[in-house]
Amino acid sequence: MPMTIAFLLFPNVTQLDLTGPAQVLARLGDSTLHLVAKMRDPVPTDAGFSILPTASFNDVPGADILCVPGGFGTNAAIADDETIEWVRSVGERATWVTSVCTGSLILGAAGLLRGYRAGCHWAQRHHLPLFGAEPVAERVVVDRNRVTGGGVTAGIDFALTLTALIRGEDHAKAVQLSLEYDPHPPFDAGSPERAGAALVEAVKARGRTLAPTRDDELRALAIRRGFS
Amino acid sequence: MPMTIAFLLFPNVTQLDLTGPAQVLARLGDSTLHLVAKMRDPVPTDAGFSILPTASFNDVPGADILCVPGGFGTNAAIADDETIEWVRSVGERATWVTSVCTGSLILGAAGLLRGYRAGCHWAQRHHLPLFGAEPVAERVVVDRNRVTGGGVTAGIDFALTLTALIRGEDHAKAVQLSLEYDPHPPFDAGSPERAGAALVEAVKARGRTLAPTRDDELRALAIRRGFS
Repeated sequence: MPMTIAFLLFPNVTQLDLTGPAQVLARLGDSTLHLVAKMRDPVPTDAGFSILPTASFNDVPGADILCVPGGFGTNAAIADDETIEWVRSVGERATWVTSVCTGSLILGAAGLLRGYRAGCHWAQRHHLPLFGAEPVAERVVVDRNRVTGGGVTAGIDFALTLTALIRGEDHAKAVQLSLEYDPHPPFDAGSPERAGAALVEAVKARGRTLAPTRDDELRALAIRRGFS
Repeated sequence: MPMTIAFLLFPNVTQLDLTGPAQVLARLGDSTLHLVAKMRDPVPTDAGFSILPTASFNDVPGADILCVPGGFGTNAAIADDETIEWVRSVGERATWVTSVCTGSLILGAAGLLRGYRAGCHWAQRHHLPLFGAEPVAERVVVDRNRVTGGGVTAGIDFALTLTALIRGEDHAKAVQLSLEYDPHPPFDAGSPERAGAALVEAVKARGRTLAPTRDDELRALAIRRGFS
């Protein structure tokens, strides 16, 4: 069955949250992939370059798969009424409602994770209850038709899991092989449990330097969006 | 020491070959990242969307790190005189000459891998001797200042390895933690050895369908570029 896949693209997205799963889902077969932004202008990412949307909100009123990435632009996306309205509208009718990294906070703000278990970046996961979701410290969290990933690189694991749910394991394995996804991280520091307290504090401190008011803003936004 | 990082961006690039390591290297610190294309127009990728270059060849005559991704557009990049001349010119003077996936074939065509050990996508690795390079079945291959990765997702392992070489292990580990790079592939099918013969043949067959003359073209291009 042909499927449409709609990624939300917003300013200051962590681009690998989107480009990782987009690479996998571009190989779903018999599908069309849209990068949907508020406007059709190039969207600046966190990595110093811009990605061109393929469509604007009006062009894509619905999709079989909604995927919302995260990043430092998450709060601004949550603050934007049009963005949240598009996510809510597409998500309410999508077959699969998905996210990577802090994209789950955007899904949450759109009211799509009330009573669901969900993943998120390890350093931001504790915010999920603001939106009625239960944080889960796993790389890919499947709860009914909500499939949410952990931070950034978890988007590849998430997308392979979703591919298997939709097209079967053999198809997912072929995509995995075509992308040579046999990861060998040179260090064992990819999770807070394995990285140790000093590295965890260093990464958190960098986040506080880059966005000192992020947590306070998010709590205020949750109240504004009707959560309390 | 501040560093400039120049990624080659060309039509029909496998976008994760570039976006994976770009996400890691954007966190190298004290550095500027360029996506360099022949022209400043948006560049279509293999995944159904376009990326905007930050610079054209003339804008970036040199860089500390040259990184060349791969993909189905590899042969066309090798066929393009201006592209190969830019890669050669930047690569001859760069501190680090690097690639992901079939990007090593582009480095090779530019004469930058003669007598070097190099990585490449598993299904294309056997072409490296066309350009005087020795294929190595490893995810990241370091030979003097040449650091070349395997297929697609190997770009993340490659970029963390390079980060550690340049900024030290602690910096690389902090980047790994910030990107939550603790991969848990849902299946064990990411290398030809683990995927088994049936999946290997399926992926190869798909490649032959998408680009039936790719191997013949590449051999002809190697001769045209002065290799025999």
